[in-house]
Amino acid sequence: MTSPGGFEAATAVEALGDGRYRGEVLEGWDVVGNAHGGYLLSIAARALALATGRPDPVTVTAHYLRSGRPGPVTVETHVLRSGRRFATASATVSAEDGPIVSVLGTFGDLAADDGDRPELLDGGPPELPDPATLAHVVPGDPFPPAFMGNLDLRLHPADGGFLVGERSGTPRIRGWLGLRDGQPIDTLALLTMVDAMPPTVFNVELPIAWVPTLELTAHVRARPAPGLLSCDVRTRFVSAGFLEVDGEYWDSTGTLVAQSRQLALVPRGG
Amino acid sequence: MTSPGGFEAATAVEALGDGRYRGEVLEGWDVVGNAHGGYLLSIAARALALATGRPDPVTVTAHYLRSGRPGPVTVETHVLRSGRRFATASATVSAEDGPIVSVLGTFGDLAADDGDRPELLDGGPPELPDPATLAHVVPGDPFPPAFMGNLDLRLHPADGGFLVGERSGTPRIRGWLGLRDGQPIDTLALLTMVDAMPPTVFNVELPIAWVPTLELTAHVRARPAPGLLSCDVRTRFVSAGFLEVDGEYWDSTGTLVAQSRQLALVPRGG
Repeated sequence: MTSPGGFEAATAVEALGDGRYRGEVLEGWDVVGNAHGGYLLSIAARALALATGRPDPVTVTAHYLRSGRPGPVTVETHVLRSGRRFATASATVSAEDGPIVSVLGTFGDLAADDGDRPELLDGGPPELPDPATLAHVVPGDPFPPAFMGNLDLRLHPADGGFLVGERSGTPRIRGWLGLRDGQPIDTLALLTMVDAMPPTVFNVELPIAWVPTLELTAHVRARPAPGLLSCDVRTRFVSAGFLEVDGEYWDSTGTLVAQSRQLALVPRGG
Repeated sequence: MTSPGGFEAATAVEALGDGRYRGEVLEGWDVVGNAHGGYLLSIAARALALATGRPDPVTVTAHYLRSGRPGPVTVETHVLRSGRRFATASATVSAEDGPIVSVLGTFGDLAADDGDRPELLDGGPPELPDPATLAHVVPGDPFPPAFMGNLDLRLHPADGGFLVGERSGTPRIRGWLGLRDGQPIDTLALLTMVDAMPPTVFNVELPIAWVPTLELTAHVRARPAPGLLSCDVRTRFVSAGFLEVDGEYWDSTGTLVAQSRQLALVPRGG
């Protein structure tokens, strides 16, 4: 079941003054009881957009401190610089028992027309079958995780076999992604999307059952056009107890709208 | 001429109490008068290592707010979480006229033996000629920039032609990198290295003369063994007024020691 009021209501924040905001982590946006990292980042970013007076995250980094649970949160923001094009600010999202996510971000207005710019594109959207021919990923117990009920994820058939125990052998996952209620994806919702693809290592034969995110950085290049995103996430290096996940996100017009990279832990003993 | 006292002295900080540290941006660590971004990050990280009581940056992100100049700086740190393995903290580096860099980082101890871990390596160090056969990049006026005098950079011959006006056509630069005084590269010096390769786009025919860094994130996987690093930096997407630079850094034993990604601006009009 999708959140009542949609994504905007699920990530709403109310100004308390002095750069502080109140939000609410809703039920149903979790991974085995822990609030989804991208969803928490979207809540923080909504507060930062208000605090900076700039609508769009351009580059944001989240460090995950503790698991979040459904319930009220406070977002404390500090604007570090407010320039002509960009403003940089920090945010800490705290639950009653302490801080859960810390964020540093630079915000701007990606609708602004900057005129002709040099362009170089070494790559494009992944080739994906018509989304109408693909099944939605639906939440299970405990997997796929509950937050999937709010999203519209349709995996490339070559990459989705891990759901039924057939790993592709390549740590890569491609698919279509959107909001389950069909609402357009703005740049704040995009921050949920960049953490929404299943773990790449589920497609390889490694003893890794979960990959807690230590840090996630997203670069937003453009506001997505309406429609599903095509997503391509990969891992190249699992070493020293860490792995990275690199993602590319393209809108329905074939424009690169975001890149993401996260550093996740490879827990001892898998 | 290299900094007296070497890298450690050039990035030294003195505790002032209450999480505040005093440092000094030295002459000679600049790019056309502006303090080098990686060098500023190393200063901030040295303060964060002291503030958290953890020697190694694991993932750090810097947002560049204003140009830094030689002179005293203050680093104000806040520890957000101090856990068993990791501690997360923020730092703001300020000169007399305001903040110049804001950093969010998670620190740990990368010497700790975590035992056998799953490993997957899709790639390795770039193939580079014997460093003894390659020339050092030396500072010019204004380019190569002054900070190069403190580093030992020897470019792959296929990627270094841009220095004499011969672009390779590919936005990639490979080379050996170390400290000019031959000191080993610790994980704090590594944060200078991940911002030290020349701009990838100098190798392509685009009207881009400078690429100011908005944000830089480095993931440190391991402490480098003594010797030069082999480095490989690339850009895949120049779009919407931005470009990313992705770097991989390998030590002399062939171990991946760091990955970096930065988001840089493509100024209007090149």
